[in-house]
Amino acid sequence: MAQSSTNYRIDGKRLWDTLMAMAAFGATPKGGVNRVTLTEVDRQGRAQFSEWCAQAGLTLRRDTMGNMFARRAGRDNTRPPVLFGSHLDSQPTGGKFDGALGVIAGLEVMRTLDDLGIVTEAPLELINWTDEEGSRFGRAMMGSAVWSGVHPEATIKSLRDAEGISVAEALATIGAAGTEPAARYPADAYFELHIEQGPILEREEKTIGIVTGAQGQIWFDATLLGRDSHAGTTPPDARRDALAGAAEIILLVESIMREQGESGRGTVGRLTVHPNSPNVVPGEIRFGAEFRHPDDAVIEAIATRFPREATAVAIARGLDLAITPVFRVAATPFDPACIALVRDACDRLGYPARKMVSGAGHDAVHVANVVPTAMIFTPCKDGLSHNEAESITDAEAEAGTQVLLDVVLARANRPA
Amino acid sequence: MAQSSTNYRIDGKRLWDTLMAMAAFGATPKGGVNRVTLTEVDRQGRAQFSEWCAQAGLTLRRDTMGNMFARRAGRDNTRPPVLFGSHLDSQPTGGKFDGALGVIAGLEVMRTLDDLGIVTEAPLELINWTDEEGSRFGRAMMGSAVWSGVHPEATIKSLRDAEGISVAEALATIGAAGTEPAARYPADAYFELHIEQGPILEREEKTIGIVTGAQGQIWFDATLLGRDSHAGTTPPDARRDALAGAAEIILLVESIMREQGESGRGTVGRLTVHPNSPNVVPGEIRFGAEFRHPDDAVIEAIATRFPREATAVAIARGLDLAITPVFRVAATPFDPACIALVRDACDRLGYPARKMVSGAGHDAVHVANVVPTAMIFTPCKDGLSHNEAESITDAEAEAGTQVLLDVVLARANRPA
Repeated sequence: MAQSSTNYRIDGKRLWDTLMAMAAFGATPKGGVNRVTLTEVDRQGRAQFSEWCAQAGLTLRRDTMGNMFARRAGRDNTRPPVLFGSHLDSQPTGGKFDGALGVIAGLEVMRTLDDLGIVTEAPLELINWTDEEGSRFGRAMMGSAVWSGVHPEATIKSLRDAEGISVAEALATIGAAGTEPAARYPADAYFELHIEQGPILEREEKTIGIVTGAQGQIWFDATLLGRDSHAGTTPPDARRDALAGAAEIILLVESIMREQGESGRGTVGRLTVHPNSPNVVPGEIRFGAEFRHPDDAVIEAIATRFPREATAVAIARGLDLAITPVFRVAATPFDPACIALVRDACDRLGYPARKMVSGAGHDAVHVANVVPTAMIFTPCKDGLSHNEAESITDAEAEAGTQVLLDVVLARANRPA
Repeated sequence: MAQSSTNYRIDGKRLWDTLMAMAAFGATPKGGVNRVTLTEVDRQGRAQFSEWCAQAGLTLRRDTMGNMFARRAGRDNTRPPVLFGSHLDSQPTGGKFDGALGVIAGLEVMRTLDDLGIVTEAPLELINWTDEEGSRFGRAMMGSAVWSGVHPEATIKSLRDAEGISVAEALATIGAAGTEPAARYPADAYFELHIEQGPILEREEKTIGIVTGAQGQIWFDATLLGRDSHAGTTPPDARRDALAGAAEIILLVESIMREQGESGRGTVGRLTVHPNSPNVVPGEIRFGAEFRHPDDAVIEAIATRFPREATAVAIARGLDLAITPVFRVAATPFDPACIALVRDACDRLGYPARKMVSGAGHDAVHVANVVPTAMIFTPCKDGLSHNEAESITDAEAEAGTQVLLDVVLARANRPA
């Protein structure tokens, strides 16, 4: 028996209050959140989340990666569950909404169903994935990667943080791991509500982003070698200035990005100068460059073009460039039926919406490999994220959660 | 009674052996020297130098800045002395010759005069200036600056190193300070032999650089502010990428330098990226830029032009640039009569030589404000300095020292 959610409203005030209550765990003086994965603060946040789940009558399971699954029974519990959620961990100087919105919105969906006395046909499971941010152990979307079979559990568990603590040790220290295997199980669909972390929705005054997939990405690590020399005594034509060469390559990255129009992404975010002395012509620059695009063919072209053109810059300046692709992920299209549910919900609810491709990595990108998946984006102020000033309005949170309720109900109640 | 030194030869083997003996103090595994000013190693080097001076019959005085003056009496000790020397301190990863060559060559001049039984008309003083390098307390040419009246002694003595130790404390710890006031006294001339620290002499196969003065310099500190944003979600036209802006400014510095031809110097040697994360568009870049030129009018023009053009780059990209000149030194011409003595010595000795302007700072640049001064450059391999691989040949050291002997004799024996 299919149900339209149009008449079912989530409780926007309860949603917001719960978001703010979660934001208290790791709250920073500047209004952000420092709730890095598998820390004591993360443990406290997880404990609070567990308590809320218990109060909502949900059955909580934890797998060996610390991923949390809060189940609400359906009318037919032989049906695979409809999954939804996100992550409660944050960047060290993160905001209140990146991740937390999707988890707390999922909790609000569960609470609304209780308020209304609704039992869905398929069971529902709300998920908090372990370590989406990757800021501590250097690998993002860790919990969902293991669950989806993208990375072996043993490999992930042996990653260590800057203090030498492994993932396995950190899980044990805060008692986050459960006994369920960290592995995919049959599921009907996965939906994730998340802030956009970009400026497009705000700029176009859209309430909802209908996320059709994730961009392809290629990341390079590079070292550019010239020769340290005295800034006062080395004439122009005797210089092998690695920083001047890097400057040309930075502008090359920008130029390749701009050629792709609005969908182009090309960034040098990390760069270090050696010896980094004011009066020494720099002899060594290490930097990272990354490109993203929804079309894998574009990424494929950049994979050969960028190293070739960067090397030409180096050669023309008598520099040596070592450049290696260190990460490559194919563009991930989401499930057409799941995407259609998000679009239909926006139509029914009358929310201005646009289709878009996620530029960021999300747990949904891993899950999409093994479960039909879609994502729902809400705007965020100035497109700002991974920043303590990250901000959304209560109306934006409410609209996104309303769409989540709508698609969860539609999917869970579709004919078996 | 004027004497030509043409028939007087320094002892090249003794010179080289003494250079190598000094290089043992702070010798590094890579063949360089770590003899940072006012450290225990510097104390040991100074003690060895004192012993050599005593063996050569020189009278050693030390001033309150730790500058060392080793005097050889003349026939007329009422005449102001002819000074020569350089510095024994090194960069933390420095070479064997930067500074040490000028001091040990001066010692060889004294020893040669003894061998030959020559007494000059005017007295001679060999100087080891304290802390030329500036690597520990952040202010280069410290000892000669105080002696020449360029910086007040109290200001310099209160500078602190990274561990919070002041110059005054460091002087006391190694017992380097003497009782003589650190202030200029009447002197007839100052000559400093130094490695070029650049590639010009080697490239042109010249044995000697006749240094006619020091370049003017202007140094800027700059901060370029954009906005941190997510590398995956921020479209090209929503970016305020401070690193891309800095790249344009780096190339602007290079372009201004190249307009000046061989005399141009323009360097961005120091640059730091915030937050320096591979997937964050950088929101803040701090960097230093410096320009040097023998002609003050060129420096004057750059003082207004560079900030104006860099600001235009920033504005076009929606970035905020804060740029401040933090250091400015006028071009310092050396004394024509002293320069002529160096040129004459090269002519008499038959050494291929060229006039040049020093691009680096040297103690001689401060001393030139108060005493007639000239410098003598020798080539160094690949123009490399401030580097453990810094290298010169024994023949190059010998030729430079021979010129020093020649000019010291000519000056000290000129008619009163």
